Amino acid sequence: MYIQNASELIRNGHTVAERHARRLCLEGAEAALSAVEPSKLMKSKVRLAGRKLIADSNVIDLEKFKKIFVIGGGKAALPMAEALESILADKITAGIVNVLDSQLRTAKGKRRIRLHAATHPLPSIVGQEGVLQMLELVGKPDPGTLVICLISGGGSAMLPLPAEGVDLVEKVEITRRLLHSGATIQELNAVRKHLSATKGGRLAERLYPNRVLSLVISDVVGNRLDSIASGPLYPDPSTFKDAERILKKYGIWKDLTPGAEKELGDGVAGLVPETPKPGSRFFTKVSNVIIGGNDDACDAVTRRLNRLKCRSEVLTTGYEGEARSAGMFMGSVVSYKGRKSRPAGYVAGGETTVSVKGDGRGGRNQEFAIGAAMKIDGNKGIALISLGTDGLDGSTDAAGALVDGSTIERSKAIGRFAEESLLRNDSYTFFESLGDLVMTGPTGTNVNDIAVAVLV
Amino acid sequence: MYIQNASELIRNGHTVAERHARRLCLEGAEAALSAVEPSKLMKSKVRLAGRKLIADSNVIDLEKFKKIFVIGGGKAALPMAEALESILADKITAGIVNVLDSQLRTAKGKRRIRLHAATHPLPSIVGQEGVLQMLELVGKPDPGTLVICLISGGGSAMLPLPAEGVDLVEKVEITRRLLHSGATIQELNAVRKHLSATKGGRLAERLYPNRVLSLVISDVVGNRLDSIASGPLYPDPSTFKDAERILKKYGIWKDLTPGAEKELGDGVAGLVPETPKPGSRFFTKVSNVIIGGNDDACDAVTRRLNRLKCRSEVLTTGYEGEARSAGMFMGSVVSYKGRKSRPAGYVAGGETTVSVKGDGRGGRNQEFAIGAAMKIDGNKGIALISLGTDGLDGSTDAAGALVDGSTIERSKAIGRFAEESLLRNDSYTFFESLGDLVMTGPTGTNVNDIAVAVLV
Repeated sequence: MYIQNASELIRNGHTVAERHARRLCLEGAEAALSAVEPSKLMKSKVRLAGRKLIADSNVIDLEKFKKIFVIGGGKAALPMAEALESILADKITAGIVNVLDSQLRTAKGKRRIRLHAATHPLPSIVGQEGVLQMLELVGKPDPGTLVICLISGGGSAMLPLPAEGVDLVEKVEITRRLLHSGATIQELNAVRKHLSATKGGRLAERLYPNRVLSLVISDVVGNRLDSIASGPLYPDPSTFKDAERILKKYGIWKDLTPGAEKELGDGVAGLVPETPKPGSRFFTKVSNVIIGGNDDACDAVTRRLNRLKCRSEVLTTGYEGEARSAGMFMGSVVSYKGRKSRPAGYVAGGETTVSVKGDGRGGRNQEFAIGAAMKIDGNKGIALISLGTDGLDGSTDAAGALVDGSTIERSKAIGRFAEESLLRNDSYTFFESLGDLVMTGPTGTNVNDIAVAVLV
Repeated sequence: MYIQNASELIRNGHTVAERHARRLCLEGAEAALSAVEPSKLMKSKVRLAGRKLIADSNVIDLEKFKKIFVIGGGKAALPMAEALESILADKITAGIVNVLDSQLRTAKGKRRIRLHAATHPLPSIVGQEGVLQMLELVGKPDPGTLVICLISGGGSAMLPLPAEGVDLVEKVEITRRLLHSGATIQELNAVRKHLSATKGGRLAERLYPNRVLSLVISDVVGNRLDSIASGPLYPDPSTFKDAERILKKYGIWKDLTPGAEKELGDGVAGLVPETPKPGSRFFTKVSNVIIGGNDDACDAVTRRLNRLKCRSEVLTTGYEGEARSAGMFMGSVVSYKGRKSRPAGYVAGGETTVSVKGDGRGGRNQEFAIGAAMKIDGNKGIALISLGTDGLDGSTDAAGALVDGSTIERSKAIGRFAEESLLRNDSYTFFESLGDLVMTGPTGTNVNDIAVAVLV
């Protein structure tokens, strides 16, 4: 069981209907978290049939390859590597994957795939050393070599390698300044891909003409392969000129560190080759397979709820926008649907943002839950859970929160006001007072957030 | 036809699928606007059967009444009054309703129900004079009198009557200061109900023991009768103490004008009776009937689309929250559903808000449409229309906007960027450039906003 305080959360329902709806929400969330365990995703999406390795529609005849290397990194790299070893066993020649420092200490010894340390959320030379070792291991490109690359959330920071002449600290500094300037994630990616030796398809360029199978657990809404881990094995739609325009827009262009200034300046002048673009031959030997993402989590919820006689459907696996407003929209859908037919379950996935203005504690899933609570207020037999599949919502120790039709009334009774909590970005205190925080601890995976609503 | 530029909007589709999806969106929107015409709502929800007046589950035997008066006001009061005259004809003893000054000039002469002028969005003594005449007309309460009250959006401003000793300008001033302080609509209502002689159930108190039938077109999300026109005929959940707390919270309490200070001070001290509360006998002779609201608009869309072989469903009739985020949520739902089955239609209603930070032109429906466009970007055969049923989005002359899966791409091609337009709250310019503003002119009704998405 992932949710540690499930029985307490069910007890918090005041009526039989509330407790029932809460129980079903928690069942759904459990099913989701269980379905997206990296090892399960690997074992369900990747298999060996004789000497053929099958991943999605890709069938790779292992007979053809003299060597099989495994490289990669990310927050799920450890269980992905473990699962791949159990699938391929001694067919793997050797491997190195970058895992979190904390995982390294507790991991059991691997036989073929060596674990290397990396850091998150900021990259460091520890991770960079791992990447250099991976490239050394794979050695000279050779069509007789299969490289299996394991990619998951956190891969951008955990697989760092700047372009030659650029220092890692320069990349970190530019990233930090862009983030402070309010740059979007697309803008940030366009810049850092053009300062990297591996991102933005550069890894595909390096590995060509090795055969490459990239197995990806997606932590990006919409599963965009050019965004997950900054797209090391996928064509880059952005250009050096885009990077220049973006850095000028935020007033950073004139004030670049020497290495970055030279790399970007040379790039704009055409002296450094562009990142590989769609249609490039570098991708002709690469297969990218998403073995897990938000869809897997949401589908697992509907399967579980349907089995529990609660007919359910997925509304979306790609919500975005301000957390409280997304929660309000979902809450209003659930309230409306509740007028028509029950029991029913509604599942949604995605990732929202919070525009922080107050000085409280909280996270996007907790604000989503408050927004939803405001819209299901007074509606009997409705509960909704919103949580991050990584188990960490915002900077809190909670995964998210559970609400029902009585949440707003109960909060008022103890002197907490939803609108005030939102104003102060203090959703954690709101739910802590109610005893409705959902606690899982770190789950070891990340396929964004999910929300499960149940009407009984 | 309400949408004046429909053929141009259809032509703006680049592909056959886009044009088809756009056409269906416009058909749906037309159906919605037509269904919520006040006269149609009156005629479909209120009827005479012999000598019985039937409105929803209320059957009123007109035989029992010596006099039948019609009073009320709001932006839809004119067509509501016209329709009621055609239903009841000379059974009406007399009536006065407050209509917009502009409507007064064009209205045909009424026989029984006289039209009086009122102002919106700010109340004025013109409207107040109308209210005083209504009360004079109804005269001394009498169980043998039936008062039919016509209520619609704008009724708060168009039916003003301050509590005795309070001047209308004082109410306007406090309202303005609360709005500038960021008070919620609930907080605003709690205060102004306690400065009024008619709002917050006070009209029911005044009319008791007349029999009262209140016919309401709702412009409030969730059709809350205590909020529509500030609930003149419905129990008030708020108290004088709430009003005090709210005015203190925003630092207005110490700085009240003399009349308001005395009224609220006396109220808090128990020297002025509270607004009537749930269970009060004053409501025993009142029937409130919502004859139209957002549900009518949304249901009309699904009926029309179903007839056009586009299986459709209502997602919600109560969305709220920040416009762009609500649009993103709806856009993501539509994109997701589009992966599963087509053709299909999704309809939603509600009313969002815009946190204005930029200096551009736009409205909540136009920002909703940009948010949706970002989430359906690249998705073929999807279109979505978002519009205010009153035909006026924000302070613009457009009702809303129409988007499809190519909107973002087309906007980039002409140098417009969705995120930038949102940042500057300049959605009007964005859609003006694309030719995708939806123009209806004022429709003469208001049941909030609707969004119609079609997948072909």
